[in-house]
Amino acid sequence: MSQPKKRKLESGSAGVAPERPRRTKREWDQLYYQCYSDVSVHEEMIADRVRTDAYRLSILRNWAALRGKSVLDVGAGTGLLSIFCAQAGARRVYAVEGSAIWQQARELDRVPVLPGPVETVELPEQVDAIVSEWMGYGLLHESMLSSVLHARTKRSSPAGLCRALHSPISDQMLEWRLGFWSQVKQHYGVDISCPEGFATRCLVGHSEIVVQGLSGEDVLARPLRFAQLDLSRAGREQELEAGVGGRFRSSCCGSAPMLGFAFGFQVTFPGGESEKPLVLSTSPFHPATHWKQVLLYLNEPVQVEQDTDVSGEITLLPSRDNPRRVRVLLRCKVGDQEEKTKDFAMED
Amino acid sequence: MSQPKKRKLESGSAGVAPERPRRTKREWDQLYYQCYSDVSVHEEMIADRVRTDAYRLSILRNWAALRGKSVLDVGAGTGLLSIFCAQAGARRVYAVEGSAIWQQARELDRVPVLPGPVETVELPEQVDAIVSEWMGYGLLHESMLSSVLHARTKRSSPAGLCRALHSPISDQMLEWRLGFWSQVKQHYGVDISCPEGFATRCLVGHSEIVVQGLSGEDVLARPLRFAQLDLSRAGREQELEAGVGGRFRSSCCGSAPMLGFAFGFQVTFPGGESEKPLVLSTSPFHPATHWKQVLLYLNEPVQVEQDTDVSGEITLLPSRDNPRRVRVLLRCKVGDQEEKTKDFAMED
Repeated sequence: MSQPKKRKLESGSAGVAPERPRRTKREWDQLYYQCYSDVSVHEEMIADRVRTDAYRLSILRNWAALRGKSVLDVGAGTGLLSIFCAQAGARRVYAVEGSAIWQQARELDRVPVLPGPVETVELPEQVDAIVSEWMGYGLLHESMLSSVLHARTKRSSPAGLCRALHSPISDQMLEWRLGFWSQVKQHYGVDISCPEGFATRCLVGHSEIVVQGLSGEDVLARPLRFAQLDLSRAGREQELEAGVGGRFRSSCCGSAPMLGFAFGFQVTFPGGESEKPLVLSTSPFHPATHWKQVLLYLNEPVQVEQDTDVSGEITLLPSRDNPRRVRVLLRCKVGDQEEKTKDFAMED
Repeated sequence: MSQPKKRKLESGSAGVAPERPRRTKREWDQLYYQCYSDVSVHEEMIADRVRTDAYRLSILRNWAALRGKSVLDVGAGTGLLSIFCAQAGARRVYAVEGSAIWQQARELDRVPVLPGPVETVELPEQVDAIVSEWMGYGLLHESMLSSVLHARTKRSSPAGLCRALHSPISDQMLEWRLGFWSQVKQHYGVDISCPEGFATRCLVGHSEIVVQGLSGEDVLARPLRFAQLDLSRAGREQELEAGVGGRFRSSCCGSAPMLGFAFGFQVTFPGGESEKPLVLSTSPFHPATHWKQVLLYLNEPVQVEQDTDVSGEITLLPSRDNPRRVRVLLRCKVGDQEEKTKDFAMED
């Protein structure tokens, strides 16, 4: 046998095993910053060309707004976006980074690297603009948006519009896995189909948010917005803790077993001079990004047909046990079925 | 940004973050059995046709030895191997399983399921034969072999011969990753090549055993045996704690940057009636299994040429902090370089 990589020896997701460690907010922050002290995550982000090109083009197209200005990069990592800002003509870019990766960031003449969380770093001047790549899995995982909004004290406001979109989904890979146990007889001549109900409980009956690429074929209705964040609007910091989200109603296309919902986001960058604004999307209908899709499985598949109504509400908020971990409250009604609720948290 | 899945929020591999939790052997055992209470690992093992077919054929070919006999299946999981034994004509098969998955195992007339670790389960009779699929990543991860050897108290001895084989390797995917930072300039017009030395430290300078598929093209010398376990030989239980392994010496084919070593295993099942014994292999030159390959990276690449001598010693033993976790001690000398030592443990 081999130890399953998906189940960590330390998570304690079920059964009698030791509980998850309780940690203070400070300890969660330490662990969070530690995640970014390794090279792999920075490689993954920079190698995601959809992400990096969207930032690069959007910064360069905004050259008229950035030229001669001072800019703050919140969570600068290896400093790539900061250098894009310098290339766009910024007079000075403050690359603020909370994790130890700041030691690897390339300090250039116009791009001083300032270590520490943006909440405590002292900037030598008020800045004219803020850039940040703050989006986590399921948009709000990592709670980095709070830091970006906090940075408004250093300046008037960051700009940009971010929409969260969802759609009901099937999942052909998961259907294969749910059906696997009834195929064992065919392969090995042994009927061990009894774990099938058990497989359903394990694979979709849990309350983890699953991060995984999804085929556009699995999308059962046109992606619809359930939340919108305008970064230039005031008063959002407290709202994040209370929860961001909204109601939805959609109609299914065709007949399929509905497994749950996928959601992703779409960031519209502030437009440059007379250009169409640039949009970064994590939709399964657009080129894949390292954010993949975020899946919320119902406890069991529900058969839907053409025009079956799917309605409800999705709310994103920080987890109680770890404020860096995103939690999702789902309330939904599929066709004539009873309304269901489910409380998800990001998988570890 | 997105939280890196490879770095867990709870591992604390570097820096100032909270330490790994210290647990008792009993707690590690609980966590270990919990890993097997979920359906995914059983699906992965059964869907590995190389593994399951090797066990199935080898059990069925041994029908003459099993017919009318009583058999013990150590760590039976969902009970598939037990049922193969019943199909081969065993009079009675005791499916012993320590994790909660025993509740899902199909209890048949001739296959009673007995919950609990084999160390404490009471069998109603001495058995005539033992079957077990006990091999973990890097052969000894999970320390399940101890349980199989312990089960000899229920019977004379399990049979089977297990060899561990290693070879020096390059790793083209890793080379790409090490070279990634110097390509950023080409892609985005920004020189952030300074993290290259840092990338080497992060990607190969760590002391984790990496489990990953490897291409046969990356193998730099013919795989050689460094350890052998004959399950029918007595006195092996204490030896496992002291360490299993041995010296090696090989000669490289061709010129390449050597990144470290890969190792895997090869199990020779007891032969049936006049048939050639069946071999289950995890070599990169054989069809892929869920065990993949186990990689031990040196702290930095070493250029080797045709006929460069690579010699040293590999020892597998249980980790001090968690006896379920395999640890590997490597001593090696590549060409004229100084001898190096490195102490690895399985990644979480």
